[in-house]
Amino acid sequence: MRIKAINPNTTQAMTENIGRQANRYTADSTSVTAVSPARGPVSIESYYDDYLAVPGLLEEIMKDDDAYDAFIVACWGDPGLEACREVTEKPVVGIAEASMYVANMLGARWSVATILPRAKHFIEAAVIKTGLSDRCASVRCTDLTVVETEEARDATFEGLLAVSRLAIEEDGAEAICLGCAGMGGLAERLEEELPVPVVDSVGAAAVLAESLVQLGKTTSKVMTYRPPEPKEQKGYDEIYQFRADTPAADD
Amino acid sequence: MRIKAINPNTTQAMTENIGRQANRYTADSTSVTAVSPARGPVSIESYYDDYLAVPGLLEEIMKDDDAYDAFIVACWGDPGLEACREVTEKPVVGIAEASMYVANMLGARWSVATILPRAKHFIEAAVIKTGLSDRCASVRCTDLTVVETEEARDATFEGLLAVSRLAIEEDGAEAICLGCAGMGGLAERLEEELPVPVVDSVGAAAVLAESLVQLGKTTSKVMTYRPPEPKEQKGYDEIYQFRADTPAADD
Amino acid sequence: MRIKAINPNTTQAMTENIGRQANRYTADSTSVTAVSPARGPVSIESYYDDYLAVPGLLEEIMKDDDAYDAFIVACWGDPGLEACREVTEKPVVGIAEASMYVANMLGARWSVATILPRAKHFIEAAVIKTGLSDRCASVRCTDLTVVETEEARDATFEGLLAVSRLAIEEDGAEAICLGCAGMGGLAERLEEELPVPVVDSVGAAAVLAESLVQLGKTTSKVMTYRPPEPKEQKGYDEIYQFRADTPAADD
Amino acid sequence: MRIKAINPNTTQAMTENIGRQANRYTADSTSVTAVSPARGPVSIESYYDDYLAVPGLLEEIMKDDDAYDAFIVACWGDPGLEACREVTEKPVVGIAEASMYVANMLGARWSVATILPRAKHFIEAAVIKTGLSDRCASVRCTDLTVVETEEARDATFEGLLAVSRLAIEEDGAEAICLGCAGMGGLAERLEEELPVPVVDSVGAAAVLAESLVQLGKTTSKVMTYRPPEPKEQKGYDEIYQFRADTPAADD
Amino acid sequence: MRIKAINPNTTQAMTENIGRQANRYTADSTSVTAVSPARGPVSIESYYDDYLAVPGLLEEIMKDDDAYDAFIVACWGDPGLEACREVTEKPVVGIAEASMYVANMLGARWSVATILPRAKHFIEAAVIKTGLSDRCASVRCTDLTVVETEEARDATFEGLLAVSRLAIEEDGAEAICLGCAGMGGLAERLEEELPVPVVDSVGAAAVLAESLVQLGKTTSKVMTYRPPEPKEQKGYDEIYQFRADTPAADD
Amino acid sequence: MRIKAINPNTTQAMTENIGRQANRYTADSTSVTAVSPARGPVSIESYYDDYLAVPGLLEEIMKDDDAYDAFIVACWGDPGLEACREVTEKPVVGIAEASMYVANMLGARWSVATILPRAKHFIEAAVIKTGLSDRCASVRCTDLTVVETEEARDATFEGLLAVSRLAIEEDGAEAICLGCAGMGGLAERLEEELPVPVVDSVGAAAVLAESLVQLGKTTSKVMTYRPPEPKEQKGYDEIYQFRADTPAADD
Repeated sequence: MRIKAINPNTTQAMTENIGRQANRYTADSTSVTAVSPARGPVSIESYYDDYLAVPGLLEEIMKDDDAYDAFIVACWGDPGLEACREVTEKPVVGIAEASMYVANMLGARWSVATILPRAKHFIEAAVIKTGLSDRCASVRCTDLTVVETEEARDATFEGLLAVSRLAIEEDGAEAICLGCAGMGGLAERLEEELPVPVVDSVGAAAVLAESLVQLGKTTSKVMTYRPPEPKEQKGYDEIYQFRADTPAADD
Repeated sequence: MRIKAINPNTTQAMTENIGRQANRYTADSTSVTAVSPARGPVSIESYYDDYLAVPGLLEEIMKDDDAYDAFIVACWGDPGLEACREVTEKPVVGIAEASMYVANMLGARWSVATILPRAKHFIEAAVIKTGLSDRCASVRCTDLTVVETEEARDATFEGLLAVSRLAIEEDGAEAICLGCAGMGGLAERLEEELPVPVVDSVGAAAVLAESLVQLGKTTSKVMTYRPPEPKEQKGYDEIYQFRADTPAADD
Repeated sequence: MRIKAINPNTTQAMTENIGRQANRYTADSTSVTAVSPARGPVSIESYYDDYLAVPGLLEEIMKDDDAYDAFIVACWGDPGLEACREVTEKPVVGIAEASMYVANMLGARWSVATILPRAKHFIEAAVIKTGLSDRCASVRCTDLTVVETEEARDATFEGLLAVSRLAIEEDGAEAICLGCAGMGGLAERLEEELPVPVVDSVGAAAVLAESLVQLGKTTSKVMTYRPPEPKEQKGYDEIYQFRADTPAADD
Repeated sequence: MRIKAINPNTTQAMTENIGRQANRYTADSTSVTAVSPARGPVSIESYYDDYLAVPGLLEEIMKDDDAYDAFIVACWGDPGLEACREVTEKPVVGIAEASMYVANMLGARWSVATILPRAKHFIEAAVIKTGLSDRCASVRCTDLTVVETEEARDATFEGLLAVSRLAIEEDGAEAICLGCAGMGGLAERLEEELPVPVVDSVGAAAVLAESLVQLGKTTSKVMTYRPPEPKEQKGYDEIYQFRADTPAADD
Repeated sequence: MRIKAINPNTTQAMTENIGRQANRYTADSTSVTAVSPARGPVSIESYYDDYLAVPGLLEEIMKDDDAYDAFIVACWGDPGLEACREVTEKPVVGIAEASMYVANMLGARWSVATILPRAKHFIEAAVIKTGLSDRCASVRCTDLTVVETEEARDATFEGLLAVSRLAIEEDGAEAICLGCAGMGGLAERLEEELPVPVVDSVGAAAVLAESLVQLGKTTSKVMTYRPPEPKEQKGYDEIYQFRADTPAADD
Repeated sequence: MRIKAINPNTTQAMTENIGRQANRYTADSTSVTAVSPARGPVSIESYYDDYLAVPGLLEEIMKDDDAYDAFIVACWGDPGLEACREVTEKPVVGIAEASMYVANMLGARWSVATILPRAKHFIEAAVIKTGLSDRCASVRCTDLTVVETEEARDATFEGLLAVSRLAIEEDGAEAICLGCAGMGGLAERLEEELPVPVVDSVGAAAVLAESLVQLGKTTSKVMTYRPPEPKEQKGYDEIYQFRADTPAADD
């Protein structure tokens, strides 16, 4: 099985970490390839970053649609997830939704430990979109930028430890979702200090993408996730152009 | 990896079907054993059946806690799921929640196609408990009893086909969850007739249970799912008795 | 009028207290009989206890269906309430729902003061099931076990007083529901110290059961609460067996 | 026990019916007195009617606060209920909330059968205010004015029968609340034709008011329902004036 | 364009302030006339005050329906707003809803800073009625009476500053709605001290009323806001009487 | 006052219509300039189109931030609205939110009449994001593409008329929002045939943008809508690059 994990930001070190995490949990016969788009922000910390990242993310799916069995969107916020599901029939899994489903099976309520405070609304929007706000005890922010989560591992560990403790003691969290793809590799270390399971979001998405392929399922093309309507996308490369003769899923 | 799938009713033919479905989708290195409790209803179609099934279901987990890596509760309604999570640290996956997570990743909204009308409230309660009622387009009932889903396969197929079409056309469903463990093996056949993905609930639970084991996660023991308090359970066998010297998870 | 109040746990002292409370508030012409099942946990503090209590609770209703005008389920959590409504046409009232309706008529928002923290999710589930989560200011837990509420009356009083004060001052509660059948007899004493009404849950259920009988109402048998479907309940006594020739309500 | 049931409209025939219904279900030792205010609309069918009815309703409580043990607001819509609770410590019960609590104990979901379509939003607002919209299957309107419910009994019966059948068959209602005080006396007649319990709203309020008195409860005066602040109410009679020397509940 | 702003309480100094605020923000060609009813409370701080204010408020609309292009209800709580929409086709704007819409366009979440604590439930009811409770971070009360907000300007300023800071720091508010018509003129002064926009509620209603007139829109008369049904309103002046020959909107 | 209305798609005829509509309702002293980005889809009918439109939309704001007093996002779906609020302090108004606020002030419940069925989920997401799903009676789709709404005016009129009638009769809509910027100019014509107000969404946004400027308000920069963090946006033009020396709002 071949899975493509797309880090929607353009920081290569984070992309490599994502690949390592994803391959660590999947079966030996599964190969996860992690990539970054050629264009887009070096990190996603605002709605602005999110929207500038999506065109590159979509291209990464469209150009390799035939070569993979499933795709992963590796940013907690699941940017552009619905659009990704429009451009391919292959299953697409977001790391936000995947980690929430896993947490939902481990604890009665869970919290998200994530990056700097301005992202709180953005993170909460992902929880609401997935439909699980009643199970979410809190979104707890550290003072970390996305790049710091990748580069300053000890500070990241300490920051996540501190807000996770608050989530458990004050908000009633019974599990923690790590709310950034850059936090890969810290879950087990945090579990040594915390009394609750800690979910690595990239790992969760990797095993769930595997699951969907094992079940032989593809994205529903009957309505919301139909292929894009054929039309001109001015100023975008050829790969972004869907034409009237493109065979639609339900033809 | 060893997974125990517990059919909470006592109909052996259904148990065998559950085992076939679960093993069909999991990896070769995973072995799923399907069992029924010694005591309980021959099918679960009411709250009464649900409650009489749970003691036997719990026993099936408690007596084999060390022998398996994960457990599956194979009744759409996820009966006793919270109690199951109290009696083991191993992951426990319900087929209702598992199929809803899978459907959530395939379509914007989905419906549950299930057994006779009296079960509608019971099925909706499972959707609400999982937290996904906003994503559920409808619960559509057939006139089928649980036993009929197992024995009258053609009638079951026709009944599910009819209500699934209504769910797609009138309720806007973009995917269908088959809402009974007895419906195993019909998903692909329905997909040939319907324009949307159809989720086999037992299959979904099997691959998600595998996923949790691959991630190395265990049930949170910090609060809601702590082991039962030590006390006397009058009139129940020894295996149901938790005693003060039973080591608790957080000791 | 004859009402049977079933304490779903098997602690006789608590059963006697329940009987006293229920008879204290009802009319002279009403007789409330309090009983415990022969089998089940000595207290209900977890989902595990809840599920093991329900078979015995159901038997207490089924064996005396003709002898009583209404039934009370005397555990805050309303365990098995839907199943109880399936096995009889007589009104069945849970002490959780009853105390919430009473509180709803006395204050704009109210809190539940209850037993040990692990029960919080269990108690909240009862609030959600009844449909009144928007009116519930908080669920506040003490460190009390169920048995302690019965045996250590002064500690129970102090614990409830402390958490009720927090609920009033921090959560905006304008009334308090005592969230355990073992707390009977403390409401008035707490009202002497607190500026808000305190609702004895068993008392609330007793007068509401009376009310339903006065109105001449019976449980709806048209759909969710139809009698259990006739089928074999393996390993259960004869009284649990519903047979095809059992006349159903709507025949 | 003495209960005052206030029909907020000024139609005397309806007031008498309300008195009959309330006394029919309560204990022999309970006396319910039904009254109409001197001023206000002859029926309540709009928000306009509702607001013009409330001053007279409040006066009926304030002038007799010492003479009764509880008060009933006898209009489905519970007009001015919060204001009523401010002007007395005695329990005040609305017929909308009371009938919904009763229906909640009889069926998994219930509908309200009521007067002309323009009242639908008004009726739904009462359901939302009580907090029970998730349990309400539908609000079904007839073409009846309030006065017709009182005067044209056969047409009223037929209209309610028709919409109740739709509520049961199309909306899944398992019980019916009669959504107007003018419908008193029709519940049993409708139950002869319908397969579900039908709740007389005035009767429900009467027995619940009795229940609150039996429990010895009074309205919470700690916050929302404190007595009105002392101030001048220009153009209103002396009875409406709360003065600074009026002893407040918590002084 | 002519707009009538009705202060539902009878304190003339507040009425004058409302007129000043409304005219300050509207176009030169718009004239806002602020009035108080002849009867009603000197301030609105409870449900009791609210209900006694509405008849006078309605009269102020009915007597001048032809002379104005739009009406403003100038009390945060939007008392009687639905009834006002029944008695005129001209747009009616409440200051609560208007300030919430404005805040919704300025910040992701916002809080209401308002008068004394007993009004909290009343204010929250306005948020819920408008449909925006998910966007409301908190309702924060001061110790101010309505009259104090008008007379003790410095204390009012300090009180609002303090609770706004708490709303920003503890509740995540990104904008503040001033929750009383008596607070007019303080928004800009507060913005000098606070890092977020502060919305003057009367100003917001004034420009939104202008907007509706510019769009040429009138209140929907098809259902909920139809003119009151013709009937006798006993004890009310002639202006309150709608008669059968009054032409209804849909005739 | 100068307002820039950005049509996020690249169809010039629609842009001109948007300009006409916006200027038609605003004051003479207000000048609305309508533009399209250089790059992006010729129409927005899917999530894919939405995401490819946003970079061009953002550029239109960033390059003219100093030249305008407010901005309008002229696509029902409010694409990228949060990101737009990050890149400017000037008020940004979406036509979806604006038309919903207007409808909320005209009718108790309202529906959105819009383009082809696949957009239903996309349109509903805008309703949910604005927080008004409880007030929305339905989203009713025609078979119209966006371009057809602009070019085939009679078919568009007929299509909107048909679905609006269904919304009024079956869903209880009391007002209609026209759910596409291409529908400008049809509101009054539809009002001639329909018994309810019809809201032109571009017009609604234009007068609300004017309102925010009249109130002197700017977007909150304290948290969610802070300026984008300084970082490299690979492959994007200079105008998209926020650098560390860019003065942030709260510095």
